[in-house]
Amino acid sequence: MKNFTFTVHQTDGNARSGQIFTPRGQIRTPAFMPVGTAATVKAMHPQEVRALGADVVLGNTYHLMLRPGAERVAKLGGLHKFMNWPHPILTDSGGFQVMSLAKLRKLNENGVTFQSHIDGARFELTPERSMEIQRLLGSDIQMQFDECVKLPCSDQEAERAMLLSLRWAERSKIAFGDQPGHAIFGINQGGAVKALRIESAKALADMGFHGHSIGGLAVGEPQAVMLDMIETVMPYLPETKPRYLMGVGTPDDLLESVKRGVDMFDCVMPTRAGRHGLAYTRLGKVNLRNARHQDDPRPLDEQSSWEPTRLYSRAYLHHLIKSGEILGMMLLTGINLAYYQELMAGMRAAIVQKRFDDFYARTKEDWARGDIEAWADK
Amino acid sequence: MKNFTFTVHQTDGNARSGQIFTPRGQIRTPAFMPVGTAATVKAMHPQEVRALGADVVLGNTYHLMLRPGAERVAKLGGLHKFMNWPHPILTDSGGFQVMSLAKLRKLNENGVTFQSHIDGARFELTPERSMEIQRLLGSDIQMQFDECVKLPCSDQEAERAMLLSLRWAERSKIAFGDQPGHAIFGINQGGAVKALRIESAKALADMGFHGHSIGGLAVGEPQAVMLDMIETVMPYLPETKPRYLMGVGTPDDLLESVKRGVDMFDCVMPTRAGRHGLAYTRLGKVNLRNARHQDDPRPLDEQSSWEPTRLYSRAYLHHLIKSGEILGMMLLTGINLAYYQELMAGMRAAIVQKRFDDFYARTKEDWARGDIEAWADK
Repeated sequence: MKNFTFTVHQTDGNARSGQIFTPRGQIRTPAFMPVGTAATVKAMHPQEVRALGADVVLGNTYHLMLRPGAERVAKLGGLHKFMNWPHPILTDSGGFQVMSLAKLRKLNENGVTFQSHIDGARFELTPERSMEIQRLLGSDIQMQFDECVKLPCSDQEAERAMLLSLRWAERSKIAFGDQPGHAIFGINQGGAVKALRIESAKALADMGFHGHSIGGLAVGEPQAVMLDMIETVMPYLPETKPRYLMGVGTPDDLLESVKRGVDMFDCVMPTRAGRHGLAYTRLGKVNLRNARHQDDPRPLDEQSSWEPTRLYSRAYLHHLIKSGEILGMMLLTGINLAYYQELMAGMRAAIVQKRFDDFYARTKEDWARGDIEAWADK
Repeated sequence: MKNFTFTVHQTDGNARSGQIFTPRGQIRTPAFMPVGTAATVKAMHPQEVRALGADVVLGNTYHLMLRPGAERVAKLGGLHKFMNWPHPILTDSGGFQVMSLAKLRKLNENGVTFQSHIDGARFELTPERSMEIQRLLGSDIQMQFDECVKLPCSDQEAERAMLLSLRWAERSKIAFGDQPGHAIFGINQGGAVKALRIESAKALADMGFHGHSIGGLAVGEPQAVMLDMIETVMPYLPETKPRYLMGVGTPDDLLESVKRGVDMFDCVMPTRAGRHGLAYTRLGKVNLRNARHQDDPRPLDEQSSWEPTRLYSRAYLHHLIKSGEILGMMLLTGINLAYYQELMAGMRAAIVQKRFDDFYARTKEDWARGDIEAWADK
């Protein structure tokens, strides 16, 4: 079987465009990965997620281990088959959700014990168990088990978690073993402390992972701090390996991070915002709950490449969201994912044509100009 | 513009198969109409509803008058455009929902005043206003305004409501006026009293509607009573006009009613049940919440004509429903509508081939045999 590979086709400043190969399919980078938490990208048929331009989706180890359970998914033929997504899947390690969702968390050198947020059942996650779960799921791109701390935190706390994550990185890599066609990424930690971030990046680079994630960002700090950390670690993350900024972010975060050399992203923002009536478009954020849309026959953006964005009136979307209709969530989730993928495609094309700065400027101008004027009912 | 027409192509016993023509498109009968309460068939893209075999959907006057409002929909180009359904739409008159949903209902000869179940706002519905709303929506097949009583009720109460509905039928027909290409149906009432049902049917037939609805059934009475009422009124509803049994029903209700000469149906059952994890299949009702499905790799019905019914495992559907995932509602709604439309297509073909009794018997056998045995995990 051909192995996991990464090729950079073109760079433009620090931005780069390329391709990850996995036996399950290619991933064009920079890539945005829709989040399929519980074996579904919420409110979307998998065929739609694909048609919208996703080469890869993310599955959550924490959610899947609780329900339906990794051993069950394995018995049913793996996550790809289970959720009818034959293309690449990346899984996180569970570390982040244990921090943000689980109850009665107890952490020691070996791992974390915690209670499920669903039914209070006790679970243990260790580097070995996290990697076992990701292997059972059949994940194409697996993450080392790490500890993610909330920002702000003390430097001491950031250092402790970073060093623990490095020791867990080694154990995760051993547990991953040899899985032809699959990859394991190390995760950079270190809070908002540059020296810690650099120490982490250097150590991970030495371990020989297939790629590198930047974790523990977009957890409460200002965007400037996040971008500062990205700039800090980039020189220490090998150019030949993909760089994945975990859990990020807004369209602006993506634009700024690609500019700094990031290749991969995942975020619940487009899907979660869509379910709550918030649209991301070329013209910025649009809140469809707002009464200004109730008589507006115009579509969200007639220049969108996604038909529903051009087809449905703002009045209809407003009505669906106000009425709590599932179709409203379906349409706005699709509209948001379409915009995110359109933004990524735009950045990839711009990098290949060495005009990223121009694309960056025009995109920011569109956002700054903002949404069209409210509809004056004649 | 060509007018609304109805043609019976073939009969088999009392069952009949034919076609309704409207300028918006043809409706193959017997027809099942998915319910698009608030300008959406819940959890479905309109293109899917079409692909599943629906020639027509139902819109609810009561819901649409409250939100987004009939005048607003008219200004936006009508209901077809608003909800992206260019095919025929049938609307009810609002009478049934005023009885079942509205608060502080006050009825007199002129009409009904009531409070919205959404925000308590006061509204009035009269035959004239109901027809005006249906015209504003652009409905292809409109219903007279009627009063629907819950069963059981006293004969006196049934008679009072039936006679009032007849007077409202005349007013509705006048208010409908002349709308080329559109139709208005009269609604048969009379509770569970044969003489009243017959009196109502005769009077409606004399008024010269484009079709006839049978209302006030499937409102709490046993199936035998409903079928008895259908048999009672059929001889008095002109053969040349379509007969529509409102708000019905289970697959068995459809089979039994087509056998007795009904041409059209609508019901929330397939869509509502789907959102709650209940599937209708060739093998009867299947509750996907049941733990017996959690390890079952088999699809709901590998003989279904709808791909998701054959594609997704019971284990996956179980997982989605248990997890409250929107995709679970989307898939099961589609699976149920697919089965309902498959059942209708089967009945239409059987009638054309003069083998309805055979189809009826085989369908009942399949249901009686029931779902496949539970999965024995090896």
